[in-house]
Amino acid sequence: MTNSRSEISIDEIFHPKSIAVVGARSDESMESDGWVARLIDFGYSGKIYPVNPKATQIMGLKAYPTVRDIPEPVDLAIFNVPFRISDKIMADCAAKGVKVAHVYTAGFSETGKSEGIRLQNEIHRIAVQAGVRIIGPNCMGLYYPKGGLTFGRLLSKRSGTVSFVTQSGASAIRVVTLGNERGIFFSKVVSYGNAIDLDSTDFIEYLAADPETDVIASYIEGVKDGRRYFNAIRECTKKKPLVALKAGVTEGGSRAAASHTAVLAGYDIVWDSFFKQTGVIRVDDLEGLLDVVMAFVYLRRPGGRRVGIVGRGGGLGVVATDICEKAGLKVPQFQLETQNRLEQLIPDAGTSAKNPVEPDSGLQAWAEFYKEGLKAVDADSNIDFILTHLGVDVYGGVGNRMSETLDEAIGILIKLSKQLTKPVIIVLYAGGRIEKITAVLDAQKRCLEAGLPVYPSVPSAAKAVSSFIGYHEFLDSMGDTRH
Amino acid sequence: MTNSRSEISIDEIFHPKSIAVVGARSDESMESDGWVARLIDFGYSGKIYPVNPKATQIMGLKAYPTVRDIPEPVDLAIFNVPFRISDKIMADCAAKGVKVAHVYTAGFSETGKSEGIRLQNEIHRIAVQAGVRIIGPNCMGLYYPKGGLTFGRLLSKRSGTVSFVTQSGASAIRVVTLGNERGIFFSKVVSYGNAIDLDSTDFIEYLAADPETDVIASYIEGVKDGRRYFNAIRECTKKKPLVALKAGVTEGGSRAAASHTAVLAGYDIVWDSFFKQTGVIRVDDLEGLLDVVMAFVYLRRPGGRRVGIVGRGGGLGVVATDICEKAGLKVPQFQLETQNRLEQLIPDAGTSAKNPVEPDSGLQAWAEFYKEGLKAVDADSNIDFILTHLGVDVYGGVGNRMSETLDEAIGILIKLSKQLTKPVIIVLYAGGRIEKITAVLDAQKRCLEAGLPVYPSVPSAAKAVSSFIGYHEFLDSMGDTRH
Repeated sequence: MTNSRSEISIDEIFHPKSIAVVGARSDESMESDGWVARLIDFGYSGKIYPVNPKATQIMGLKAYPTVRDIPEPVDLAIFNVPFRISDKIMADCAAKGVKVAHVYTAGFSETGKSEGIRLQNEIHRIAVQAGVRIIGPNCMGLYYPKGGLTFGRLLSKRSGTVSFVTQSGASAIRVVTLGNERGIFFSKVVSYGNAIDLDSTDFIEYLAADPETDVIASYIEGVKDGRRYFNAIRECTKKKPLVALKAGVTEGGSRAAASHTAVLAGYDIVWDSFFKQTGVIRVDDLEGLLDVVMAFVYLRRPGGRRVGIVGRGGGLGVVATDICEKAGLKVPQFQLETQNRLEQLIPDAGTSAKNPVEPDSGLQAWAEFYKEGLKAVDADSNIDFILTHLGVDVYGGVGNRMSETLDEAIGILIKLSKQLTKPVIIVLYAGGRIEKITAVLDAQKRCLEAGLPVYPSVPSAAKAVSSFIGYHEFLDSMGDTRH
Repeated sequence: MTNSRSEISIDEIFHPKSIAVVGARSDESMESDGWVARLIDFGYSGKIYPVNPKATQIMGLKAYPTVRDIPEPVDLAIFNVPFRISDKIMADCAAKGVKVAHVYTAGFSETGKSEGIRLQNEIHRIAVQAGVRIIGPNCMGLYYPKGGLTFGRLLSKRSGTVSFVTQSGASAIRVVTLGNERGIFFSKVVSYGNAIDLDSTDFIEYLAADPETDVIASYIEGVKDGRRYFNAIRECTKKKPLVALKAGVTEGGSRAAASHTAVLAGYDIVWDSFFKQTGVIRVDDLEGLLDVVMAFVYLRRPGGRRVGIVGRGGGLGVVATDICEKAGLKVPQFQLETQNRLEQLIPDAGTSAKNPVEPDSGLQAWAEFYKEGLKAVDADSNIDFILTHLGVDVYGGVGNRMSETLDEAIGILIKLSKQLTKPVIIVLYAGGRIEKITAVLDAQKRCLEAGLPVYPSVPSAAKAVSSFIGYHEFLDSMGDTRH
């Protein structure tokens, strides 16, 4: 390792003053999703240098035959080239003094083939010698909307406080896309692939101290230096929540990870112990990752684990209760005073007011119930927070009245949530009818805009909120008093 | 118990020759969802007697002041009356010689209040003495579209081979509604509530021998006679799969169940042992129940647990592999021959052909890949069945081309599935954009019509298929050779 390799910080990597797109397509346009169009579309304010020996100009920018021909300094080079010429391109970058190479190109050690392994070793050797840092290969690179960086035109330009460090390019795109759809916006995302140089640990260390990041999510298959990784996540969770999806935990998954990013995925039990000791929140899939992130973005810490459930009662209420308790929450009986108050609001026989409490059947009655019922539950000292689930799938009825009544109920819910003393979590499910799905998506949007967390199911909400509370309990156990 | 109580069989209960709707609303019409309108709408071919002292005619049918005034025999009486007069109505039924009372009315022992408990005991006493069988109280009763019986106008009139026995009215409506949306249709459904007479055991015994029923699903909070129930489920699973959601398994859930159907929910460990010994497939929620039922309706038994995954690769493929293996499936490496064949079809670097195999990025390439790729996976002797997941959420792109390409891919998938030797399971996920959701719902419909099972996520598919295979393994272990 040469001295120059430490010259660029991760923060500088997210703020390149100039970018060379090596292998920029000559036919790129504002209709395409090429690397040059992405930078222009996202308002990247630094210099863009398309590199393509067969073009003189790309999207109005002067194109250069090689990186060496660029007259000014290049902070970041994006490799959008066949893997067979990656060594030549890296040699150009080395000669030019490029600071960071994002090797988007795949086909290296993850293929298990000798040619790919040889070329990966070769680009690594050249880069180390010249002090070029590498993101990748076999990865999507950087998404930092505030800085005009993106790996996809369809991703949101809106910035948020969540950062995501991922070994998987597909999960990078999927998490940002689905996150955006669920009202979750990102500060910085990095997809780092085979991690021959910069690894998960480097990015987590940086983001733990990054003032633009409040929550860190991570998809990881393996790490190079287990001890350094362990120290990084331990320090990180003292300051910020870290939500991790460890992939490649089964025999087949481990084999698949080897074909994906050429890592040794390691023993699941070791990772589990890593995560438990350090307070990392472990999740099983990307949906679960977003569920937990949703809580950190939209929820304030409740006083405890006791939930008051306002939603479909009867058997659905019993199942919701089981699900919450199995997830580690508590569903205690309401105080008698609360029960009496609620019974006045729902005089119908066949409903329960003990917790869960069920408003009258059909959505029509929900708006009316919310007005007084939520206040009653909020005032109950047996309860730390409220979960309300609106099963529009079955109980919404049909026709225009359904979307109107849902709209009305959501309006009151939003208005009241600002007056309540305890946090409110909303679960909305639509079933398979397009008119209900449309109404529920509208309702979700309104809730998110009002700062209320929305989940697609009771299990997803219960699990995520329990993890969210668990992180705060972890901080408490560490003697840290900030939440 | 009088002798006459054994005179009517459950089969006769599902085939009443005449029905009295006690408390029929005088303003019922074909626009309403009342009990009389339901029977007429669903084409019930027996006699309908509306009972309402304030009406002379309801929906063109002569109305009677009391059940006693009906001139002809009454097989089934539906109680749609305030619980306070339920004893009087039961006395009328007793005097009339009604065979079965479906007490839809709620407000009895499930309220925990003395008046409700007293009235429940009273209607039970009257019924026992007169030999009237009771479904309920506090329940939705019967749904049997073939026989014109339903508890909801919005439920499908189409018959199927699934029967559902449930203590919860809300779950009865939800399971049928969501089932219908997912291409699952029902033979017979009974919601039996507080079960003061007819219980889960009676219905399961009957359905186990019912030629119109292939799969039995059950939502249960508690039973009266544990030994009889155990024997019933043990005998049932020898002949047909039984999928059970036991609710009220946690401290809070058990309390909620007591408020719901006044049962003692019992120890979870006892139920778990019941189910394991008898080969009952246990699920955690109604969605999971429908997932398993989907497999029994749409899937033929694969040769084993080894799945070939055709779907989004990279990190998503690693996660899918982990999920399948954690659910008890196996994701082995394809044979070298298969890998070579697949690599010819997806020459792109960065994708894996080892299992999972990932077609080229974007949906465009899927249709083309399916043509030869599915055949290659099907021919692999390491593989017992195929799971293909189409992540339209992110990879569908946007615009008309998305729905066209999805349509094309689904068309080829359907066509090919008929030529393949191994079962195919389809996972379709849309994300939160309405145009993708619409396209995916269309695709789902086409697949279901073609007899292919469709799941909303890899975890739901993996868990359900593993349970499905597990039931067949259970039968094998019982020395039963029929599947």
